[in-house]
Amino acid sequence: MGTRAGIVVTGTEVLTGRVADRNGPWVAEELQRAGVDVGTVIVVGDRPEDMRGALEYLAASGVDLVVTTGGLGPTADDLTAAVVGEAQGRPLDVDPELEQRVAAVVEKLMSRRGWRADPEATAAGVRKQAMVPAGATVLEPVGTAPGLVVPPADGRSGPVVVVLPGPPSELQGMWPAALAAGPVREVLAGAGELRQETIRLYGTLEAQLAATLRGLEDGLGGLEITTCLREGELEIVTRFAPDAQPAYDRLAAALAEEYAATLFSTGPTLDDLVAGALADQGLTIATAESCTGGLLVARLIERAGSSAWVLGGITSYANSAKEHLVGVPGEMLAEFGAVSPQVALALAEGARERFGADVGVGITGIAGPGGGTPDKPVGTVHLCAVGPSGQQARSVRLRGSRTAVRERSVVQAMHLLRQLLLGGPPA
Amino acid sequence: MGTRAGIVVTGTEVLTGRVADRNGPWVAEELQRAGVDVGTVIVVGDRPEDMRGALEYLAASGVDLVVTTGGLGPTADDLTAAVVGEAQGRPLDVDPELEQRVAAVVEKLMSRRGWRADPEATAAGVRKQAMVPAGATVLEPVGTAPGLVVPPADGRSGPVVVVLPGPPSELQGMWPAALAAGPVREVLAGAGELRQETIRLYGTLEAQLAATLRGLEDGLGGLEITTCLREGELEIVTRFAPDAQPAYDRLAAALAEEYAATLFSTGPTLDDLVAGALADQGLTIATAESCTGGLLVARLIERAGSSAWVLGGITSYANSAKEHLVGVPGEMLAEFGAVSPQVALALAEGARERFGADVGVGITGIAGPGGGTPDKPVGTVHLCAVGPSGQQARSVRLRGSRTAVRERSVVQAMHLLRQLLLGGPPA
Repeated sequence: MGTRAGIVVTGTEVLTGRVADRNGPWVAEELQRAGVDVGTVIVVGDRPEDMRGALEYLAASGVDLVVTTGGLGPTADDLTAAVVGEAQGRPLDVDPELEQRVAAVVEKLMSRRGWRADPEATAAGVRKQAMVPAGATVLEPVGTAPGLVVPPADGRSGPVVVVLPGPPSELQGMWPAALAAGPVREVLAGAGELRQETIRLYGTLEAQLAATLRGLEDGLGGLEITTCLREGELEIVTRFAPDAQPAYDRLAAALAEEYAATLFSTGPTLDDLVAGALADQGLTIATAESCTGGLLVARLIERAGSSAWVLGGITSYANSAKEHLVGVPGEMLAEFGAVSPQVALALAEGARERFGADVGVGITGIAGPGGGTPDKPVGTVHLCAVGPSGQQARSVRLRGSRTAVRERSVVQAMHLLRQLLLGGPPA
Repeated sequence: MGTRAGIVVTGTEVLTGRVADRNGPWVAEELQRAGVDVGTVIVVGDRPEDMRGALEYLAASGVDLVVTTGGLGPTADDLTAAVVGEAQGRPLDVDPELEQRVAAVVEKLMSRRGWRADPEATAAGVRKQAMVPAGATVLEPVGTAPGLVVPPADGRSGPVVVVLPGPPSELQGMWPAALAAGPVREVLAGAGELRQETIRLYGTLEAQLAATLRGLEDGLGGLEITTCLREGELEIVTRFAPDAQPAYDRLAAALAEEYAATLFSTGPTLDDLVAGALADQGLTIATAESCTGGLLVARLIERAGSSAWVLGGITSYANSAKEHLVGVPGEMLAEFGAVSPQVALALAEGARERFGADVGVGITGIAGPGGGTPDKPVGTVHLCAVGPSGQQARSVRLRGSRTAVRERSVVQAMHLLRQLLLGGPPA
């Protein structure tokens, strides 16, 4: 493929997982949308030699563009601008006008939060943030840190480096300006259109799909196919240049025929499907959750505009809450136990009734690590979704840690909802 | 520092952010605990040349150990074993006994899920997963994929490569066996003890801390200090060899003195502090959430054993739910609006009363992007925590996307709880 880019994510806090990196994937997605192929993301700590090594490696691999994220703060471990300037052969100097603009932002921020700081220390930090490699384009700060577009020094070859701040909101806010900068526009002008299509199956083994793809091998020229299995969902993503569209159409038709029983989407995500069905059918929804503790309702509410269909949920972790807040009969809890199909149904019906919702979902289970019995081991989860047109229930035994069991339960519940609202492959 | 490692995370789905990588940070943390310094994590797609490039780069940078994750499945895009075998000079061959063991696992998995697949396709996938570089140590599969420990071929130099599967539960389950493998043990034997300490401030600017650290510069020899600011929390992580302990003690004392007003932890996370306070004080807790939609109660329940103190929560997204399920007076909603300090307090008290909990938390706000007014713009959030010893309330205007506002509201609520239960710096 034509235009290629690499991404360098900096920050020891990202490297050690104290903060999950959201920037690498976000930038990769944006670049791919612009027709740029991203093959590598490198995460380095705050040591200059590691960052320098990453830049050199990407330059040597022949990419046209490098995007760095993070390391633009006022402390001594924030050294991206200096390392990039050096790598591109462009020495740094203070930009006095930028210094004034950053100082104004910092002052405003501090007064709004009511924070006090030593003026001299603040000024030193501001000056550091206003250091610009000679000839670089400054991207105006969204927070306090300006970004940079740094082409190689005159007479040098190598990628254009775009330097962006670490906080995702600042980075995303600065992205349009980065794309509009001259050197970046020149790189992107060389990028062709790249299409991406996704097909989703629920309940097909990866090995089976591999055999299907091997059988089609001759007809797949020009398609870059990747498959990913998670939580029972097999996602098939295909990227291709426009001239390979006929090959993709053949692939899509072959998969639709062979996997009619498990294909549940030729594009939209599970969340898209559930939200779309609720909106299209004019239905409201409420949940009553035990082991998932509010994760399902939080996921339903994540979508902007969801207040039109989500009424709310009750996290009835204690039995007394199941009884008094959701209306699960005390005798039922005593007879079948809190983790039972009967209670899952009563939770779904209780959620529906208490919130006056059209659709109710109930989840009860044992997320562990404690609480399991021989009869009901850790991972036992009962789910039920009740709507105007009927109900769907499922009892499963999920593997994995407490977090995994809770997350998988939410996925199961979403598929149950999909099946209740749209039919299609069983949850 | 002594022993160094690099990590290669594979998978186009990770590169493009469709799946968040949990393996890189997890492995980095484990290696650091074993005294190994991890400077670089490289994420590559499913193209062999990118993976080969990453291995070569890490080898050239002089690391002693490389850990790869993912790319061990049965499909054609899973090629880690082949690329690593080639890089280490060890050609692949089928291990017939391993093939039988993998086949048995796959068969059991399929019969449990009730899945059917073409036997020939399954056998081809199994055979692929049983391909082992000559002289490598096989790590028994936790799921279906075996792992590998691949030292350089005899007579070659370079790092030992540990090949692990992508699903986090499989990777983590296989980790003890990886550490126990001879070549890995030899590498780890050279690693010295590395200590790590964390100090957390709430409400101090990074620039101010930078000035403090500059003032102490002479006394900080042997300490590797990184700072990270997020959601108002400034995290200061220091790593050092045992002989630098006195330097660390001086740093900790200086920070404790200078930041007495904002230092809220010399180790435990915010979640540790809140859970510990509830457990130690024998208090139960319940929530009533609007804009955060269950995220707070889900976070409180995330911790194993939390059923001892978390009774549950109500996500009262609709006004009718606030009124009928939590008991917020209809007149109050009409007079002050759902997003008001009065309603936050009524939600906190309602949660306490409905669940019979000692502590109640109420959150109401406008997460956006719609729903804002000039009077109550998007980002307006009112929070309240009520307990046996009093109450804490806060009204804030948060910036960022819908997701950011919801997440920041949860952080604010956790700090409010910390302050209610433990005192210390204001939320």
